[in-house]
Amino acid sequence: MTGFVSDNHAPAHPRVLEALAAANDGSAPAYGADRWTERAEEVFRAHFGPDACAFPVFNGTAANVAAIAALAGHHDAVICTDVAHLHVDECGAPEQLAGVKLLTVATEHGKLTVDDLARWEDWRGDEHRAQPRIVSLTQATELGTVYTVEETRALAVAARELGMLVHVDGARLANAAASLGEPLGALTSDAGVDVISFGGTKNGLVYGEAVVFCRGELGEEFAFTRKRLGQLASKMRFISAQLVALLEGDLWLENARHANEMAQRLAARLDVEIVHPVESNAVFARAEGLADHAWEPGICRFMCSWDTRPEDVEAFAVRVRATPRR
Amino acid sequence: MTGFVSDNHAPAHPRVLEALAAANDGSAPAYGADRWTERAEEVFRAHFGPDACAFPVFNGTAANVAAIAALAGHHDAVICTDVAHLHVDECGAPEQLAGVKLLTVATEHGKLTVDDLARWEDWRGDEHRAQPRIVSLTQATELGTVYTVEETRALAVAARELGMLVHVDGARLANAAASLGEPLGALTSDAGVDVISFGGTKNGLVYGEAVVFCRGELGEEFAFTRKRLGQLASKMRFISAQLVALLEGDLWLENARHANEMAQRLAARLDVEIVHPVESNAVFARAEGLADHAWEPGICRFMCSWDTRPEDVEAFAVRVRATPRR
Amino acid sequence: MTGFVSDNHAPAHPRVLEALAAANDGSAPAYGADRWTERAEEVFRAHFGPDACAFPVFNGTAANVAAIAALAGHHDAVICTDVAHLHVDECGAPEQLAGVKLLTVATEHGKLTVDDLARWEDWRGDEHRAQPRIVSLTQATELGTVYTVEETRALAVAARELGMLVHVDGARLANAAASLGEPLGALTSDAGVDVISFGGTKNGLVYGEAVVFCRGELGEEFAFTRKRLGQLASKMRFISAQLVALLEGDLWLENARHANEMAQRLAARLDVEIVHPVESNAVFARAEGLADHAWEPGICRFMCSWDTRPEDVEAFAVRVRATPRR
Amino acid sequence: MTGFVSDNHAPAHPRVLEALAAANDGSAPAYGADRWTERAEEVFRAHFGPDACAFPVFNGTAANVAAIAALAGHHDAVICTDVAHLHVDECGAPEQLAGVKLLTVATEHGKLTVDDLARWEDWRGDEHRAQPRIVSLTQATELGTVYTVEETRALAVAARELGMLVHVDGARLANAAASLGEPLGALTSDAGVDVISFGGTKNGLVYGEAVVFCRGELGEEFAFTRKRLGQLASKMRFISAQLVALLEGDLWLENARHANEMAQRLAARLDVEIVHPVESNAVFARAEGLADHAWEPGICRFMCSWDTRPEDVEAFAVRVRATPRR
Repeated sequence: MTGFVSDNHAPAHPRVLEALAAANDGSAPAYGADRWTERAEEVFRAHFGPDACAFPVFNGTAANVAAIAALAGHHDAVICTDVAHLHVDECGAPEQLAGVKLLTVATEHGKLTVDDLARWEDWRGDEHRAQPRIVSLTQATELGTVYTVEETRALAVAARELGMLVHVDGARLANAAASLGEPLGALTSDAGVDVISFGGTKNGLVYGEAVVFCRGELGEEFAFTRKRLGQLASKMRFISAQLVALLEGDLWLENARHANEMAQRLAARLDVEIVHPVESNAVFARAEGLADHAWEPGICRFMCSWDTRPEDVEAFAVRVRATPRR
Repeated sequence: MTGFVSDNHAPAHPRVLEALAAANDGSAPAYGADRWTERAEEVFRAHFGPDACAFPVFNGTAANVAAIAALAGHHDAVICTDVAHLHVDECGAPEQLAGVKLLTVATEHGKLTVDDLARWEDWRGDEHRAQPRIVSLTQATELGTVYTVEETRALAVAARELGMLVHVDGARLANAAASLGEPLGALTSDAGVDVISFGGTKNGLVYGEAVVFCRGELGEEFAFTRKRLGQLASKMRFISAQLVALLEGDLWLENARHANEMAQRLAARLDVEIVHPVESNAVFARAEGLADHAWEPGICRFMCSWDTRPEDVEAFAVRVRATPRR
Repeated sequence: MTGFVSDNHAPAHPRVLEALAAANDGSAPAYGADRWTERAEEVFRAHFGPDACAFPVFNGTAANVAAIAALAGHHDAVICTDVAHLHVDECGAPEQLAGVKLLTVATEHGKLTVDDLARWEDWRGDEHRAQPRIVSLTQATELGTVYTVEETRALAVAARELGMLVHVDGARLANAAASLGEPLGALTSDAGVDVISFGGTKNGLVYGEAVVFCRGELGEEFAFTRKRLGQLASKMRFISAQLVALLEGDLWLENARHANEMAQRLAARLDVEIVHPVESNAVFARAEGLADHAWEPGICRFMCSWDTRPEDVEAFAVRVRATPRR
Repeated sequence: MTGFVSDNHAPAHPRVLEALAAANDGSAPAYGADRWTERAEEVFRAHFGPDACAFPVFNGTAANVAAIAALAGHHDAVICTDVAHLHVDECGAPEQLAGVKLLTVATEHGKLTVDDLARWEDWRGDEHRAQPRIVSLTQATELGTVYTVEETRALAVAARELGMLVHVDGARLANAAASLGEPLGALTSDAGVDVISFGGTKNGLVYGEAVVFCRGELGEEFAFTRKRLGQLASKMRFISAQLVALLEGDLWLENARHANEMAQRLAARLDVEIVHPVESNAVFARAEGLADHAWEPGICRFMCSWDTRPEDVEAFAVRVRATPRR
């Protein structure tokens, strides 16, 4: 049983796979000059606003790094939490490929606050110090919590006042939107976010993410950034077709809502302490002895995904309960 | 009609797509710890020798850059032709991401010679100069020609004597092998090549390439290189399953051989000068007025692919003949 | 009065300037192939051991970055304190130029402990995480404290056991040695340190530092690293002559000891709380209203240097006492 | 005798050394907030125009790389000759530190022509290709020739029309100005140049160069670029004082004119073929057997400097004549 370890373990949703297969329709121009990519761009504008501009890429590390590289100069810094994927799980890629310094904040539940943004303001204008230029939020966070629309907006306003831009690592943005009951644009473009790493793989795609600039002018040079970072798909139609399948209708929402519900159900079935609010598809619990789920000493992470079934939850909860406590 | 512009315009082969779909079978560990990737590794060893070590990646730019980055230090240089994809078509990625200098050689038909390798030997040991460390061959070349096994071996011997390693940009390695009537290993591992960017996308995959170290010890740290360059697929099984479909039997060869045959057929049907030997799936002809095919002033490139049909060749040859000459 | 703001405000020592002027003696080979550099190399070996290998560079940022770049690969991380110059005062240069991630530790008095080194051991071997490869100590620390020989040795032993190398940011190494009453080699080479950024500018030079590899084989490729980072002086004799003047006799020690004594004297004259042990040439005191000395809210830093006179200390202490408290 | 090998072998001019020594006058603010640097900035404005903005740095590699890094993005390319220091003598630093691709042009006498600038225009706007963004001239060139003011202006006009900026590697700019009998500004700012690596070391300084932005707004972020590239001198007064000594009066011109005259004299004394016009302080001659001067097979380079004496020229000419021909 590999379930509950990661939402990356899930297969692709059948409708996504069908869309990918349907795009295998004879010759098509390479590098995004195809009709599926054109349609994907429309669909992203429908979600993120008429000024938004979306670029399909292969995976999440790259979406994050490319988004940062597009907005940050080489003496710039990015403020994020100390559990951010950007800091912990990218093998130093933001530093190496975008040349930025990461400035990290310890948090209780994985969410930055407005106060965190001003911590390095005495660095501003000082040539000896990297310049805080981007605030990177993870939505839903690495700890399964969700920024409210108001929280995001407050952070964006504060960032703007300090001369910073706002990036959202949205590997699980759909889960956040489902959790809040808000459209994707409400918690991003409309709240003042500048650029999004939009996640597809964890929400039912075979592969594929997108970098979305909420204000298109920020992405004017991004075609070059994507290419030089090795993220320009030659047969881009196959990513685009999947993104269209996910976003044209409500599949993104169905998948995310289901994963979130399974997490709620799992949390309810466990008899151990839940250490972070369960607001998306992750459950963090005080438990040991489950090596695949070990997050930090004494804490385990359980992830639900679009394909988690109620009976899987039951069986897994039984297994967790049966694990000897120390 | 988008045919003949690029072998990237072709769809995926149906058997590849079937294999991808068949891999959509419930949960599976992420990041390559799955059975499809294990099988892909076996299949690569079968082709490239028991000591070979293969790493699936997303695309060709990345395969090239990651292979170079794995073998070159930051004061190193790579010798390649001045038509190499590495130099012309990667938006500077080798310089930016691997930090190498490219030293380019003008050629008649896209192939390096042994003499080219010693051109910068007076730089060796001089702290003011980047140190030639890698020779990068493109096989089949950007101009559709193919290095014989003997030519590759002679280059590898010469490289070794000068303290250099040999990289093969094998975006069309299958076409070269089909052209030579040799197994894949004969023109790489057995001929002294160190690392290969093995191409899948242009030979019938939806997406996917692999970096193959012919001597596994060269790839010992490559898992980190792949990750930091944004090329670690979370649902890697879907790339691996495609690579297995291509390489387990003869599909790689069928596809490449067919594309090569269509190029021969096209060359025979044209009434214009063919400017490079037609040894793989590309035809370079003295022609103008075909903007999609313009290669350099007065020269057009026509690419065939696994799905090119004889009747497409006939129709295209008629079209080329009908283009007004200047 | 610019005194006490930084030890960089001090002029060069007259004997250093004389040595620089004496090196202006007709033609001499460039890039270090001169007799002054040969002599400097001997002098460094006398201090740091027969196996040590020293490379003059221009400044401290560069010495730090080049030393790190020489020892760390691109997926590596450096453990340092959160007040390290490397983290706070290099404008992100380690990340940009050496491609490393910095992993920072909060400390009471600026000193790493053995326990700090193992914090990221669960990252080791995980391709998603930068690999801890270097421990960087600052000696004397940014907070004016000093690692004892035993503390350094314990850190070096612990680092070695974890597969890490030890870098010392020795911008004020002379002050540390003077403080401990130990030779320079005792607190570095003999204690297990691998590479040192040896500081000259703050201890009486016009300009000039050196990267010293305690085990010469670690520096075998460093000539290239120094060059590519823009730190190869064409007229190197002028740096080398200064380093010889500093290190051939006891000038390094006289200068450092004097600066340390002035710091002791200043600390004794102040009537405010001293917040870190005064073990080198810095005094950190609870004070406000001295903008040039502001370190963090409520804390001021006062630096002494080789040219600080007792009467300057008296005058400055009076000035600090006269500053209105809040 | 080390003369004639390189102008880097020359000592510092006595008036420069005096100025350096005179700046050793008590405490002074670090990092350029001193009166010598303020004066240097004025002096540079006097030469390069009221809008010019100068930043002292340590050496020439760094001046070149930092100037390029300030103006080029990471998907940009720099057009230069294939003998440019930037390409041949910087150990790959422009690629590594500025992330640019170099596009090189073979020339007869080291000078770019207007036609060379348009060679890569078919790359423009193509995401697969690095974008030509900077034209880098070397003035005087590596081959001792000099661009006339008209040639520079024509290149600058052509560059601007193509959307490119103009960098001048002016390690020997003074020699070019002396050769042309023009003020420094006439061949740079007034001719449309954007940024200059202004050379001091080869023209009589102990150490020190400057990056000069002819239009100050281009340098607005340069303080950060200089710092992050390890080129911010803490005791900057010592570089600035030398630059003032060189540029406040006519010392720059006297030194350069003298070196140029010695080159003319040497060329006249040799009995071998001179292969490039002798327009600055270099003589390239068909000769062999002088290993220190070997430039390429069969060609030697002889450099004159500010301290070359007529009798040195005579003696050296005799030595060259006495070298056995092959």
